[in-house]
Amino acid sequence: MADRPKRVEFREEGPREGFQIEKTIFPLEQRVQLVEALAETGLHHIQVASFVSPKHVPQMADSEAFFAAIRKKPGVHYAGLWLNEQGFHRAKATPGVDLSGKISLYASNAFAQKNNGCTAQEMAERQRRWLELYDEAGVKPEFAIIMAAFGCNYEGEIPPDRVVAMAKFAQGICAERGHKLPAVFLADTMGWGNPDQTRRLVGMVRDALPDVRIGLHLHDTRGIGTANVMAALDMGVDFFDSSVAGLGGCPFAAHGDAGAAGNVCTEDLVFMCHELGIETGIDLEALVECAKMAERIIGRRLNGRVMHAGSLAKYRAPKREAA
Amino acid sequence: MADRPKRVEFREEGPREGFQIEKTIFPLEQRVQLVEALAETGLHHIQVASFVSPKHVPQMADSEAFFAAIRKKPGVHYAGLWLNEQGFHRAKATPGVDLSGKISLYASNAFAQKNNGCTAQEMAERQRRWLELYDEAGVKPEFAIIMAAFGCNYEGEIPPDRVVAMAKFAQGICAERGHKLPAVFLADTMGWGNPDQTRRLVGMVRDALPDVRIGLHLHDTRGIGTANVMAALDMGVDFFDSSVAGLGGCPFAAHGDAGAAGNVCTEDLVFMCHELGIETGIDLEALVECAKMAERIIGRRLNGRVMHAGSLAKYRAPKREAA
Repeated sequence: MADRPKRVEFREEGPREGFQIEKTIFPLEQRVQLVEALAETGLHHIQVASFVSPKHVPQMADSEAFFAAIRKKPGVHYAGLWLNEQGFHRAKATPGVDLSGKISLYASNAFAQKNNGCTAQEMAERQRRWLELYDEAGVKPEFAIIMAAFGCNYEGEIPPDRVVAMAKFAQGICAERGHKLPAVFLADTMGWGNPDQTRRLVGMVRDALPDVRIGLHLHDTRGIGTANVMAALDMGVDFFDSSVAGLGGCPFAAHGDAGAAGNVCTEDLVFMCHELGIETGIDLEALVECAKMAERIIGRRLNGRVMHAGSLAKYRAPKREAA
Repeated sequence: MADRPKRVEFREEGPREGFQIEKTIFPLEQRVQLVEALAETGLHHIQVASFVSPKHVPQMADSEAFFAAIRKKPGVHYAGLWLNEQGFHRAKATPGVDLSGKISLYASNAFAQKNNGCTAQEMAERQRRWLELYDEAGVKPEFAIIMAAFGCNYEGEIPPDRVVAMAKFAQGICAERGHKLPAVFLADTMGWGNPDQTRRLVGMVRDALPDVRIGLHLHDTRGIGTANVMAALDMGVDFFDSSVAGLGGCPFAAHGDAGAAGNVCTEDLVFMCHELGIETGIDLEALVECAKMAERIIGRRLNGRVMHAGSLAKYRAPKREAA
């Protein structure tokens, strides 16, 4: 616990992860309302939408209009996701998109094929071109993400050495262009992680890249997401992707059941951090209201727990009426 | 992690916790079918039903018939819950009920009033009489449970000293009658616990009662149940109450939303233990089938995650068709 951070940063993934997995395309104004409400909670980074094939992900076909419609709050980054050059060009042409220079890598070849139609190595090589495009656009590399870093439904166990090699590769191609890689996110895309593995993988990546901030992108596919976050906190990890109400799931990650495959839930993690005395800069009660809004939009019970049970704030005030 | 147990024992609470919280009274044969299937998973302790007021908990009015209908598997304990003398007499008169000599205590006065209609101190004093009844019935004290040990919606924070005092009281009244108290369960009845508090409370109770096995009865009210279990495992705790599919919630614990208030989920915890190399003696795949059965009976999506996503077993076999 000596390594535990004093403050943790969350990147909110709910709008993209959540609306992308649903079969329904929800009205633009409802999605805008959710993003605007999230921006008022103290979250500084919100992933709004994907710039991916409208054929494969029709839910994200109106990403340009979606970004345009959001009333932007100063100091909040509104991010978009892309998986190829074309997507980056769309994002770049869209006003208000935070072009956080992202390096996308796969620890699983089979998942790279499913999600990106290329091998993990081909995807890695393409990142050199992405960095070139970023330089042209005046965008600095901000983070690398290594997908399926904890295991893969298509490939099985993923050797941690491969994850470390991918992280070093990302650092190397940044250095080639004179850039420092600020952060690497390890993504448990298909919910394979456990607390010991989290500790081990974080430790190995940190040993290999001591100057790079480590972030985690976890899915609570098997109910132990918060235990994994806890293990990461104890390793000093202070940077997490998460989704309000536990929204989400990747449509190509073969979780089997979309409803069970969401990201770790932002407000549940914020609750845990606050209970542990870790700052987040987030107004938990406002975030719970966002989770309820997401539930109203989606129209079914979502996975978050604090959104249904409430935080402990109201119970801590003295209860005069009782006993 | 040096303290982490090699083997963990689960007491299954799903049948009682789950069917008690529902407004519907489910057909006896369905409940019997679930209990019988649970007994085939390797679980050795199943809490089947309550012997409580049929007026307040009509779902448990047929506990005698329920116990009678179960085909008992040798080596499995079929437990019943009681909260007063009358309940114990009913349990004793029911063939097949494991009369596990339980001592019931409250760390919260206000919750004792709500749940038991007496003060915490009155409840504690009554335990002397319970032990007398146990002696008369030839039942040895098996465990004490301290309810609302982590915090109380009616009373607020619960001083850990009060929990320790209750645990020592239980040990003391056992000693008065020449008995050793084998175990004490700390119950987070209303989902207040966090990992640090879990460590602290377990540590304090262990320091005060070094020879007593510590168990935890946790509710995953706020989504951090598995993180709390993980903290307990790292403290050497090897005894947990849990519910298949995350069933449950106490009708008088004012969780606000029954669906969010279930116990920690047995199969998710078994999954986590197995991933960590901790034995449970439980067949995870058989348990997942029980969770699905519970979902079919209850008729709505339940909180368990592994039951929806599946374990990792099928993905670990080599995948020849994929890249």
